[in-house]
Amino acid sequence: MKTFGAIEAGGTKWVCGIGTGPDDLDKIQFPTTTPEETIAAAIAFFRGHDIAAIGIGSFGPVDLVRGRITSTPKAGWQNVDVAGPIRAAFGIPVGFDTDVNAAVLGETRWGSAQGLDSCIYLTVGTGIGGGAIVNGRLVHGAMHPEMGHIKLPVSDGFAGVCPFHGDCLEGIASGPAIEKRWGLAAGQLPPDHPAWPIEARYLALAIANFSCVLSPECVIVGGGVMQQQQLFPMIRSELESILNNYIAAPAVLPPKLGTRSGVLGALVLAEAAV
Amino acid sequence: MKTFGAIEAGGTKWVCGIGTGPDDLDKIQFPTTTPEETIAAAIAFFRGHDIAAIGIGSFGPVDLVRGRITSTPKAGWQNVDVAGPIRAAFGIPVGFDTDVNAAVLGETRWGSAQGLDSCIYLTVGTGIGGGAIVNGRLVHGAMHPEMGHIKLPVSDGFAGVCPFHGDCLEGIASGPAIEKRWGLAAGQLPPDHPAWPIEARYLALAIANFSCVLSPECVIVGGGVMQQQQLFPMIRSELESILNNYIAAPAVLPPKLGTRSGVLGALVLAEAAV
Repeated sequence: MKTFGAIEAGGTKWVCGIGTGPDDLDKIQFPTTTPEETIAAAIAFFRGHDIAAIGIGSFGPVDLVRGRITSTPKAGWQNVDVAGPIRAAFGIPVGFDTDVNAAVLGETRWGSAQGLDSCIYLTVGTGIGGGAIVNGRLVHGAMHPEMGHIKLPVSDGFAGVCPFHGDCLEGIASGPAIEKRWGLAAGQLPPDHPAWPIEARYLALAIANFSCVLSPECVIVGGGVMQQQQLFPMIRSELESILNNYIAAPAVLPPKLGTRSGVLGALVLAEAAV
Repeated sequence: MKTFGAIEAGGTKWVCGIGTGPDDLDKIQFPTTTPEETIAAAIAFFRGHDIAAIGIGSFGPVDLVRGRITSTPKAGWQNVDVAGPIRAAFGIPVGFDTDVNAAVLGETRWGSAQGLDSCIYLTVGTGIGGGAIVNGRLVHGAMHPEMGHIKLPVSDGFAGVCPFHGDCLEGIASGPAIEKRWGLAAGQLPPDHPAWPIEARYLALAIANFSCVLSPECVIVGGGVMQQQQLFPMIRSELESILNNYIAAPAVLPPKLGTRSGVLGALVLAEAAV
């Protein structure tokens, strides 16, 4: 059995792993600093290991063909070639996709969506993004989904924090949106804070829209904000109310792989690159 | 070359055709009355013809496995088996899908999306519905898309006409929504009526959301309301403004097959059923 390398290239931290799956994954993480320093740390981690390929799930938006990050608001990371230096360092195949596409692959292979033909992985943290499987394959289309940027009815008058769209989903329901609205980080708000019914409402509206477009069998919701596990029953209840029995609500589940969906999905990207 | 039968089973009219493609399609249409009468009229049209299979693109929601219409608001058509009586009458394979899935197949085979790997067909008429192609294949998922029922920011205070969701996309932008808002049918409003900037805004918001979820190369917009062709440039301009260069806007095009996308797509369903 071949061993692969995996990188979950996030805007806050990178997680690198070596292994074949959840049972033998050896991983480290380090903060995302400059592109040069961060990519060099990843290369140092893989150096000397016998790996057949490396998969990268990256924050974005990305250019999938060129393996680059494109129009990110993250300073210093616009138009950075991520796949190129990794490929050059090891001379092995490199698979490159978005972080959320990696995560949905990981969850479909080993996690909450194991064996399903259609599902969505949504991450709710510093940003909001989604990856989707349709007919057993990743959705790319012209570029890749940017599910965090859909527009929803905004009922609480909040102007939103997205630099591109103001009150898109990411603008009203990401970690920074919660912090801006309440003056405290999501992790510091108690479970009975009035922030959570509002958050659940917006995530349920988003999942209702995703369900109308993709009809997924399940929607896995991960990311830092979802550490507030009281959100899950609130989202499910709002979702039923929004869909109103016109279509069946998909299962809304936490990621079985926990915080490892992305890095494990990057192993699947590596495997596919061989 | 085999000849196929095709049915576009709409809520207002049925279009039945026999042929192999756009150049030789022989078709008729008749109003949708009771299920018994309407299905009998389709059977009478195909009787005596040498056809290898019949494809049906139906209004919905539908149960694709059983070939039935399910929770439609259309009186008398709830839980009607459409595919069964057609299959029983001729003993040949019957392909069954939604009307908009048929339309997107037709447009991908012979129309505005010819050769594309990803696209959406949206119909804006008595109802609003969408079908999608991803990685060259129809999106079904747990059931099938119901794109007309997404929720959008509603800025004109209109309560909407959808019996299930009030102000979902279909509730605010379908033909009946326009008529309810202005007291005149869409076809009776002049091209410079204030209805059209509002309509274009809602359709652009919907297409922006679909683009964030599916990243399609093109979005084809058909249906009765889109006979108002001044809507196309208005939608494109609103769409650019909403997406704000974060992602590239897909091409927004009328259906090259005109009003025949659905019935021609049903031929493709027939072909696939063999």
